[in-house]
Amino acid sequence: MLSSDLPTINILKQATCSAWVEQAISHIDIILLDHAQCERKAAGVALNLIFRYPSNAKMVRELTKIAREELEHFEQVNQWLEHRNIPMRPLAPPPYGAGLKAQIRPKEPERFLDSLLVSGLIEARSHERLGLLATHCSEPELAKFYRGLMASEARHFGIYWVLADTYFDREIVQLRLDELAVVESELLTNLHPEPRIHS
Amino acid sequence: MLSSDLPTINILKQATCSAWVEQAISHIDIILLDHAQCERKAAGVALNLIFRYPSNAKMVRELTKIAREELEHFEQVNQWLEHRNIPMRPLAPPPYGAGLKAQIRPKEPERFLDSLLVSGLIEARSHERLGLLATHCSEPELAKFYRGLMASEARHFGIYWVLADTYFDREIVQLRLDELAVVESELLTNLHPEPRIHS
Repeated sequence: MLSSDLPTINILKQATCSAWVEQAISHIDIILLDHAQCERKAAGVALNLIFRYPSNAKMVRELTKIAREELEHFEQVNQWLEHRNIPMRPLAPPPYGAGLKAQIRPKEPERFLDSLLVSGLIEARSHERLGLLATHCSEPELAKFYRGLMASEARHFGIYWVLADTYFDREIVQLRLDELAVVESELLTNLHPEPRIHS
Repeated sequence: MLSSDLPTINILKQATCSAWVEQAISHIDIILLDHAQCERKAAGVALNLIFRYPSNAKMVRELTKIAREELEHFEQVNQWLEHRNIPMRPLAPPPYGAGLKAQIRPKEPERFLDSLLVSGLIEARSHERLGLLATHCSEPELAKFYRGLMASEARHFGIYWVLADTYFDREIVQLRLDELAVVESELLTNLHPEPRIHS
């Protein structure tokens, strides 16, 4: 259902710079901690959309699956933390999430469209960055773990895109996705000093 | 780990009255709709606790499992809605949830204890009411579904109780659970006019 109609995930306007890779690889324990938070947040965002738009049956169905998968990943990342004796603790988030959230227009139906597209973009960026971690991580087991998650992130981007395409005209979706993708890349232009998945 | 130390689920101060059973059984489609919302909310509450207390590893582990199960149930209830051609739509919640939430003391660590116990009490009441639906529902398949969910609700109550007992002195937990259980039953004394799981 969701595979025939997908654009490629190449909607990111700028590829991640090598400085991020260096920062992340040399602080892999903090990256794991932040990654756990990202998975938990992704589940929360899906649940909030279900709460806000309960009548959109297709969206509810798809986002329930996404939320369940994100929680499964959250559990897996937490097992990595435990395995490495990294105590769980809160981390201040980088400005990325709030910066994207600020782009969501407050009025409906724009709010719904933007929410879907922002979530999709975050999944697309996560896909790219987990791929970089998989490539550059010197620990084979952890690299394998990241590689395993990449496919889900790409699929999740696809689901958000298909949902936007279900409820809105494709032309409008593509125009807005393009605008948001510009902002998304701009938010990552200056590397955030704290190592994060989206620093 | 969680089975040896559990109190019985008989912490509810008052059993559900027959008027609720009559109301629910004669509006089973609305009860299904509301039940879906309850499962989604329960997942959201577990996620919020994870978000608020990320350093409590045992709690994070247990509540992630609960959130995943609630989402699985949400999916199952939604399949029942689809099967019966009940379109998803928002329902105004009964005063029960807000009434219990108002009992959560704002300062820590009381806030944490009360949050765990309120969630536990809601699970205990859901256990009782799904059991009543299982007994009184005239559709064998649906009755079987409710019976299947009952065990999870009881287990979830047990997990919230064990978590409270992990982070707080047992005497304090039991005293506060007792106080909250009184309020919980009071909130259900007058049947809410709209059929709900917690009306």
